[in-house]
Amino acid sequence: MKLQNDLFLRAAKGEKTERPPVWLMRQAGRILPQYRALRASLSGFKELVTSPALAAEVTIQPIDELGMDAAIIFSDILVIPEAMGLDYEMIPGKGPVFPSPLTSSKAILDLEFGSAAAAKLTYVYEAVQITKKELNGRVPLIGFCGAPWTILSYMVEGGGSKTFSKAKKFLYQYPQDAHVLLQKITDTSIFYLKNKINAGVDLVQIFDSWAGILSPAQFLEFGLPYIRQMCDAIHEVPITVFAKGAWFGLDKMGKLDCDVIGVDWNTYPSIARHLVGPDKVLQGNLDPCMLYSSPEKIQKATLEMIEKFGGQHIVNLGHGVYPDTPLDNVRVFVDTVKNYAYPQ
Amino acid sequence: MKLQNDLFLRAAKGEKTERPPVWLMRQAGRILPQYRALRASLSGFKELVTSPALAAEVTIQPIDELGMDAAIIFSDILVIPEAMGLDYEMIPGKGPVFPSPLTSSKAILDLEFGSAAAAKLTYVYEAVQITKKELNGRVPLIGFCGAPWTILSYMVEGGGSKTFSKAKKFLYQYPQDAHVLLQKITDTSIFYLKNKINAGVDLVQIFDSWAGILSPAQFLEFGLPYIRQMCDAIHEVPITVFAKGAWFGLDKMGKLDCDVIGVDWNTYPSIARHLVGPDKVLQGNLDPCMLYSSPEKIQKATLEMIEKFGGQHIVNLGHGVYPDTPLDNVRVFVDTVKNYAYPQ
Repeated sequence: MKLQNDLFLRAAKGEKTERPPVWLMRQAGRILPQYRALRASLSGFKELVTSPALAAEVTIQPIDELGMDAAIIFSDILVIPEAMGLDYEMIPGKGPVFPSPLTSSKAILDLEFGSAAAAKLTYVYEAVQITKKELNGRVPLIGFCGAPWTILSYMVEGGGSKTFSKAKKFLYQYPQDAHVLLQKITDTSIFYLKNKINAGVDLVQIFDSWAGILSPAQFLEFGLPYIRQMCDAIHEVPITVFAKGAWFGLDKMGKLDCDVIGVDWNTYPSIARHLVGPDKVLQGNLDPCMLYSSPEKIQKATLEMIEKFGGQHIVNLGHGVYPDTPLDNVRVFVDTVKNYAYPQ
Repeated sequence: MKLQNDLFLRAAKGEKTERPPVWLMRQAGRILPQYRALRASLSGFKELVTSPALAAEVTIQPIDELGMDAAIIFSDILVIPEAMGLDYEMIPGKGPVFPSPLTSSKAILDLEFGSAAAAKLTYVYEAVQITKKELNGRVPLIGFCGAPWTILSYMVEGGGSKTFSKAKKFLYQYPQDAHVLLQKITDTSIFYLKNKINAGVDLVQIFDSWAGILSPAQFLEFGLPYIRQMCDAIHEVPITVFAKGAWFGLDKMGKLDCDVIGVDWNTYPSIARHLVGPDKVLQGNLDPCMLYSSPEKIQKATLEMIEKFGGQHIVNLGHGVYPDTPLDNVRVFVDTVKNYAYPQ
């Protein structure tokens, strides 16, 4: 089906566009009253993730309400550990918890992986199919997964953390086990993304949410090589790589076989461009907390950001939108971009 | 009193030294069995902070046990909010909690500040005096405080956080109130550091632990100017500024009237030197998690780090040592530096 609005895909492929496209990480979620209403009627977050029709519904809500240039399938990066045999729970107010985090070589060897593990996530592929049908070509649909290091960090740490020191300790103490686990996650994630692409997503984004807590040497050993494998395996659609906090790796990310590099809010656009080089589109990077500010300030900061990137740019925040962000402020952000036109 | 080991101070002042000095952030603490034994006999963390003789005892423990080239007074950055009238509690397993975080302009206006607030912290100054006496010139003593933004972040957020989004929201929504509060914290901290210097500390370090969650623009507006005021006000002893995660501000920090710039473990030494420029001594930056590794790897990584900095360097970790670090591994780290000699 031909897309009515293909601005996001044209920009992702590096084509010159009339304005930058705009979407927000976590746009499908608690910023929307219609999401909160649906969510309140359910048993929990995981019911929403595993119900294809509901996941499709919340994926489309922000497009209906705010008119971004791309939708992103509502899901969670932790479906991958679950498909590999490591269950998690989502505890309200606390976040994800793995009751049995990985602590032994045997537990790692016992994990399922690859196409068999990825095949279990039928509810995600169905959600993609329903969403594509219901979007009816309005905007492209983004699929995503976590980068292998970020997935490992939850599987070993057992949940969220400020320092992920258990997961980092694991890399230093058991590097061989870590590589076995990272390879299993990578193999699974490649099949997972390919299945999503077959189901209909138009671009895939790899989120390395915890790249920034690695030392540069660890990122080069345990992070980047597995992202590279994923980029090298996928050619069907454009790929975005977002390694939050890993400014020290932007130069190497600029050499990946991908199309778009995500930029967090700590990074000056000019420095990101200098480090990444000329070949990639950059995505980002307004501070999500800026959306707590006034409409006038949001508009001003958004326009300044667009001008600082100066093209080859997809507008987004530098991290997921915070749940308590005023909806009208998100609207100002989106509308500011949609009303902008690059100078001729 | 003349110092028997003045290597740390000579290095901090930019003099050429025979080897880099070494100490660890959080060296006085849970890595030491003698600390844990003392701590277990007390009602809580705050009893230790507010008891001068005990604070002095734990300050000296790591010098006795591991022989670092500097001691750092055992205390907490949150004594400043408390002196300003905002009490905190230290909850085991959770960290600091402010029962009444700041939420109004009036609460900020009501805070005490400046010399009157700083004068309340007599237990810190007494701890410094006792420590200096008991150290008896063995090594220099470091005094410290939090940078104004980091102190504000706890006072507004009400405790620790992964995102400090409430504190950042406060900067965006109430910038004028934020500046009033930051100025009050700055005024108090300057008197506090001067009192510590009068009591005997040989160098002061300013910890901006949460600088890295600010956008570059926020760091320039709400972070750096107050650190600059502090640097401009203190000339009695050398000053170290450590703004964790604020790689984007290293070039501006290189122009502060201070002596040493702390470098976190995410930052390549060569990039830190390039950004800071030639005039400052750099302190850091081994990944604290590296100390979970084997003695051989710790030694190798420590020597590589020393060579990468290539002089004008004080060896430390890129963040505080983690409490569960094996003591023998800390010993390997310290001894590797002490057995090193710069090439002639």
